[in-house]
Amino acid sequence: MAKVEEKIENGADGDVVVMKFGGTSVAGPEELKRAAARIVAAREEGSKVVAVLSARGKTTDELVEAAYEISERPDPREMDMLLSTGERVSCALCAMAIHDLGHQALSLTGSQAGIVTDSSHTKARIMEVRADRIREALGDERIVLVAGFQGVSTESKDVTTLGRGGSDTTAVAIAAALEASVCEIYTDVSGVFTADPRIARDARKIPVVSYEEMLEMSASGAKVLQLRAVEYARNYGVPIHCRSSFEDGPGTLVVPESETMERPLVTAVTHSTGEARVTLSGVEDEPGIAGRIFGALAEANVNVDVIIQNEPLEGDAGADLSFTVDRDDLKTAVDVIEGLGGISDGVRTDEQIGKVSIVGAGMRSHPGVAARVFEVMGERGINIEMISTSPIKISCVIQADRVPDAVSGLHEAFDLGADATFPEDPTGEHRPTVRP
Amino acid sequence: MAKVEEKIENGADGDVVVMKFGGTSVAGPEELKRAAARIVAAREEGSKVVAVLSARGKTTDELVEAAYEISERPDPREMDMLLSTGERVSCALCAMAIHDLGHQALSLTGSQAGIVTDSSHTKARIMEVRADRIREALGDERIVLVAGFQGVSTESKDVTTLGRGGSDTTAVAIAAALEASVCEIYTDVSGVFTADPRIARDARKIPVVSYEEMLEMSASGAKVLQLRAVEYARNYGVPIHCRSSFEDGPGTLVVPESETMERPLVTAVTHSTGEARVTLSGVEDEPGIAGRIFGALAEANVNVDVIIQNEPLEGDAGADLSFTVDRDDLKTAVDVIEGLGGISDGVRTDEQIGKVSIVGAGMRSHPGVAARVFEVMGERGINIEMISTSPIKISCVIQADRVPDAVSGLHEAFDLGADATFPEDPTGEHRPTVRP
Repeated sequence: MAKVEEKIENGADGDVVVMKFGGTSVAGPEELKRAAARIVAAREEGSKVVAVLSARGKTTDELVEAAYEISERPDPREMDMLLSTGERVSCALCAMAIHDLGHQALSLTGSQAGIVTDSSHTKARIMEVRADRIREALGDERIVLVAGFQGVSTESKDVTTLGRGGSDTTAVAIAAALEASVCEIYTDVSGVFTADPRIARDARKIPVVSYEEMLEMSASGAKVLQLRAVEYARNYGVPIHCRSSFEDGPGTLVVPESETMERPLVTAVTHSTGEARVTLSGVEDEPGIAGRIFGALAEANVNVDVIIQNEPLEGDAGADLSFTVDRDDLKTAVDVIEGLGGISDGVRTDEQIGKVSIVGAGMRSHPGVAARVFEVMGERGINIEMISTSPIKISCVIQADRVPDAVSGLHEAFDLGADATFPEDPTGEHRPTVRP
Repeated sequence: MAKVEEKIENGADGDVVVMKFGGTSVAGPEELKRAAARIVAAREEGSKVVAVLSARGKTTDELVEAAYEISERPDPREMDMLLSTGERVSCALCAMAIHDLGHQALSLTGSQAGIVTDSSHTKARIMEVRADRIREALGDERIVLVAGFQGVSTESKDVTTLGRGGSDTTAVAIAAALEASVCEIYTDVSGVFTADPRIARDARKIPVVSYEEMLEMSASGAKVLQLRAVEYARNYGVPIHCRSSFEDGPGTLVVPESETMERPLVTAVTHSTGEARVTLSGVEDEPGIAGRIFGALAEANVNVDVIIQNEPLEGDAGADLSFTVDRDDLKTAVDVIEGLGGISDGVRTDEQIGKVSIVGAGMRSHPGVAARVFEVMGERGINIEMISTSPIKISCVIQADRVPDAVSGLHEAFDLGADATFPEDPTGEHRPTVRP
């Protein structure tokens, strides 16, 4: 443990730092030059720097749009060939800006950087990082820029992409491969907050959060870090520093949970309105049915979130089975279910659902948190349609239009506002290195 | 000889056809779908098809502009990384369109297609085409789409580009490697004309032209085919069919010169206003000076076109040496000359020059053509500033604003207009296969 914090604190002289810049941080020439200046500053402090960049501003959206102008169902392999160009443009331009600041830079595609993935086009998983070329360039005193969000498939040598937000994963995977002291994720927000500040006006920035909490938060709607990136960071013990590319000062550190961390009962309230519910009525009550359904969905790369099944009443034809999926996957999910044929009496979908969650490592040792959540919802007359829990999270699926009310109610009930005392990492062990 | 024409005529069933589409032919969704339909039609006629695509519309210009927003002198390696993305976008989108038409397509980057080049970034030369992956895909009954204008450097494995218009060269190089029956170049004009129809209103489309003539025409301003592509085609005997992507019917065939070709004295008038003149005054009259100057320019990748040197007068300090270069290369050329130091008394430049040329294989056996050119210029009061000739071409450097006048004068004097009789390939040997 101590070793990790030491690496973050003394992250200078020869240590590798991975810095990732999101789309808004490289959108125009000014933003791009600012990112280049940050990268050069880190280099001049003595670190070896690898920067992972996203596509500029709305580039990816525009490319997706161009694809749908051509085809209603664009071929996934070709979609990856198309989308991977955006990050390459960012990297080439940033390398030019770094050259002008008097440093040597080298831009690499995901393939050139050795990001080897499986062959699931548009949703590929990183299998290995063959970082030889990055290491060689760092050894030559160069700053290395890597196109995020992409790799090359191990079998067919095709360009693959990692799915939306995949650049975070690229950055963490490279940080792990190079044993970087820290992976800094630069975005347009200054860190991870106790709730969406647009909904809970008194939301505060969280100084330190554990991988486990961050995982639950990312999974339940916090957009600042991508779920798979956090997962990867936890698996390889990569400390993440999530911060603003537009202002200085520390952001939020994501690190292993340690004994010295004093944790509040609830760390944050998260929410999401990007899901949809599928309900199968009259599902036959026989073993293996659920396995067939969810196996087929997994096969089609559809992530299922919350699942509930009502026991069939005596004499009923079958049970009702409901589950939620990403709204983008709804069409695929329905196609898959219908493809199974005769598994239920009917399929209903509901796109007007939302989910609100509370996350906190402190929950583990404090019973009664769930009861308080239900009280808050009850007081506000919000109907809970589905519930899912983990040792450090409680999620409620509710009507989409009630989400803001639920978020501010829970944020207040668990005392997460700016006036509340928030443990500020009293040991100082998690203090991040602050770059200019 | 007969073998080549046979290949063009019977270009079906298992024969490989390479089709290249320029930027205007893939600009919007409609153009792109039209190109896809043409490609599919060729496939359905039984040919194995490789299509080479350029970047869409103004994409390359926009990328260049983005680079200059970041840096005044963008790093050439990074410029290549940047520019190579445009063609990849075209190929991915076209592959999607082809899939929707019920055919299997595979898009490849220059690197994936095995286009191996030297390391001269932004002006790389193709050294080898390792077409294994293309062959494999064709063997699997796929249509292959290759990103034009780009390759991978043999030494550093970096992305390279071939310079403006390089997609023509990509197409011809692939056609040569695959021993394709024909390389079809689709553009927004219907073929090669006797002069620019915007200047000479009665200009006509030329049905057949020899490599040698086309080389001279491309070198002297005809924009329809890139010089290096023609050179490559001649070296490997690849028949080129230059035609419109917006209308059917045959365009212009570029083939080896044969005995059976009946050639007019002059085939076409070409012009260019994209050059500039550099004049060095008082160049020391000693052996090796010219070698040093033009050696250094070649080293810097500056193509020199016309050169003239005035003998120094008795008692003069030195001679005057003038040469013309692409206007884009003017700054580099002056930098190179000044870098040599003390080689002349002074360097003057003139960007207001133009060049008009007549090209024709018939010239070889007909003296008096040059005299007629000078007469035409004299009658119109156009001052000839520099002259350069080859056995099948006469070029005159004149003031830029006199170019249109010179073009129409020469076009008329050599009887190239629509009313003139033009040998229509009476043997029929050069009749191109016309695809819908």
